[in-house]
Amino acid sequence: MAAHAVVLGCGMVGATIARDVATDPDFSVSAIDVDAARLKTLDGIPRVQPQRVDLSDPSRLREAISRADVVLGALPSRFGFQTLKTVIEAGRPCADISFMPEDVMKLDALAREKNVTAIVDCGVSPGLSNFFVGRSYAELERTDRAAIYVGGLPRERRWPFEYKAPFSPYDVLEEYTRPSRLVENGRLVVRPALSEPELMDFPGVGTLEGFNTDGLRTLLATVSIPFMKEKTLRYPGHAELMRVFRETGLFSETPVEIRGAKVIPRELTSRLLFPLWTGQDGETEFTVLRVVVEGTDAGESVRHEYDLFDETDLATGQSSMARTTGFPCAVFGRMLARREFADPGVFPPELLARDVLVFDHVIHALRHRSVQIRVTRQTLGNAEPA
Amino acid sequence: MAAHAVVLGCGMVGATIARDVATDPDFSVSAIDVDAARLKTLDGIPRVQPQRVDLSDPSRLREAISRADVVLGALPSRFGFQTLKTVIEAGRPCADISFMPEDVMKLDALAREKNVTAIVDCGVSPGLSNFFVGRSYAELERTDRAAIYVGGLPRERRWPFEYKAPFSPYDVLEEYTRPSRLVENGRLVVRPALSEPELMDFPGVGTLEGFNTDGLRTLLATVSIPFMKEKTLRYPGHAELMRVFRETGLFSETPVEIRGAKVIPRELTSRLLFPLWTGQDGETEFTVLRVVVEGTDAGESVRHEYDLFDETDLATGQSSMARTTGFPCAVFGRMLARREFADPGVFPPELLARDVLVFDHVIHALRHRSVQIRVTRQTLGNAEPA
Repeated sequence: MAAHAVVLGCGMVGATIARDVATDPDFSVSAIDVDAARLKTLDGIPRVQPQRVDLSDPSRLREAISRADVVLGALPSRFGFQTLKTVIEAGRPCADISFMPEDVMKLDALAREKNVTAIVDCGVSPGLSNFFVGRSYAELERTDRAAIYVGGLPRERRWPFEYKAPFSPYDVLEEYTRPSRLVENGRLVVRPALSEPELMDFPGVGTLEGFNTDGLRTLLATVSIPFMKEKTLRYPGHAELMRVFRETGLFSETPVEIRGAKVIPRELTSRLLFPLWTGQDGETEFTVLRVVVEGTDAGESVRHEYDLFDETDLATGQSSMARTTGFPCAVFGRMLARREFADPGVFPPELLARDVLVFDHVIHALRHRSVQIRVTRQTLGNAEPA
Repeated sequence: MAAHAVVLGCGMVGATIARDVATDPDFSVSAIDVDAARLKTLDGIPRVQPQRVDLSDPSRLREAISRADVVLGALPSRFGFQTLKTVIEAGRPCADISFMPEDVMKLDALAREKNVTAIVDCGVSPGLSNFFVGRSYAELERTDRAAIYVGGLPRERRWPFEYKAPFSPYDVLEEYTRPSRLVENGRLVVRPALSEPELMDFPGVGTLEGFNTDGLRTLLATVSIPFMKEKTLRYPGHAELMRVFRETGLFSETPVEIRGAKVIPRELTSRLLFPLWTGQDGETEFTVLRVVVEGTDAGESVRHEYDLFDETDLATGQSSMARTTGFPCAVFGRMLARREFADPGVFPPELLARDVLVFDHVIHALRHRSVQIRVTRQTLGNAEPA
């Protein structure tokens, strides 16, 4: 009998997850959203059953997932935590990419109690970035440094921002304001977002600029690496403009009174940026992810580099952001439905990567979907003692 | 008997005019403003009588100027035109620096009818810029080009704008949005503000960037020069940020609805810029004005360059902007009170500069007040026929 997957949320990423799982004849997929227009994009796809349900109602959510062998969460971040909690309480295995602001590990005890496996933050970054760090962390005797660089960018660079947002500008501005947590000398350090710009070259792309954002998330708790940082990549110059906007107060959430009305500057700014940051039909974009891990193996200094590249799939129109976020979730989801991984608890990808078979399976599956992944392991010579 | 001068508006520039005229023992000065705090800065100055009057009431304005030998207008631009009209109707000679948006030459017929002399736009730019162009225009057989470059800047360059506004940021943003009228091949051409950036070096200052603004004003009608442009000077990079802000819609005057309230983006932007663009006590600023006029004299190509430089007067705390705007007005005002110039009509400075005695008198008076002015007349060789 076919396994049953329920996809919660059919935005760009959720739809990609539903389509991907449904390519497997062993699966039937319920694709759920409150918005009929979104569901329409999934009409006529074999083995996909679009269903219009208001998932903000917990009883309807419970009903929707009652027959699920696996639940795949792709709702907007503000619904992520509560939805995942309901899914775990209902005893359903799940994989989630909703990028919730809450600390998802707080659901670990509940998942163990309910004997449920929940794979979380399993997109591209958070997601594959954690997966790569976790793999090296498992392989190395001692891990000294991990650095994550990630960005989704339009191919065409248009003045002045050279950027299109794969999600709401308001959420992008949140990335540009939330203090960035990093690890230095084994200690948590907080730096302003957009700080410490660094230029880096990417083959086929050119020079990009990375800057601190708050992207380490679960890695801050799950691994012990004395130096860790996560940087977002943009075309050079973008970050400087964003620093200027922030300095001017345009990202502020403190209301300003204008003619008697209280105005939140960030709301006006994101409203104005919306048309400028929205990709047009036919525009192509790409995603780059580079993870560099340094440490010691068999007494030698080693450097592991993971380079991922993906671009808009012109055949399906799927963006690289939807592909690289949705595919890992779909692959993990299939593993869960088949009970290939069934440990109880909340698992971010770095913990799954400890199993080399799981790691190789996911990398293979992504490459099969034309996501380019290059892994380089370099030996740098004798290591100095720690 | 002492001549009586009435100064309308005692902001930074008006106060400078009042103090300057009052240094002359032959004058008594009434300094008028609606704001008691502004008047307080003039307390105890010999020969200055501060008076609190609401000048938006025409009958009070008429009463205030009824005994004036000369009226010196330094009100905010939005009150300029109506005030000047009332002063002319009252038959009082006047010099004005209010930078009104209206075409001031429309008052010429009225001034002639009332047999009144009105010297207008007589600050630094408009003002001395016109004066310099007008002098060369009078001297040369044929004038081919006139270019005006002007800016007021802080000595200390602070990221990100490297700018302090001598007046409200809202008015500066108006300069950055109003289409710039220039003359090319004898025809009026309109270009966007902030366009055609040009780097130029200024001794003691460094490299500045000029860009088109709408500063030719009366020169568009009073002289016939086939190429004319006016550019505002800022530290390099400022204009690019302003272009980005404008492109984003932050200077727009079209309301945007945010949570039911209609918000004019330019109002929020200027509100946010206000603290960043306000000079602090002890900060020094400077003003540069360069006017280049090219043409033919006695069969030879010639180039006239006028370079003006002024900076904050640390002794009085007067800004260079207040000094270079206020002094010409004060000097013209004294000439009017003494009837040294009494032709009826509206006169922008380019028309007054036709008289070399008037020109030399003003330059002498400015140098006497430590404003640096250098005039260079270069012969470039045989001129080609027109």
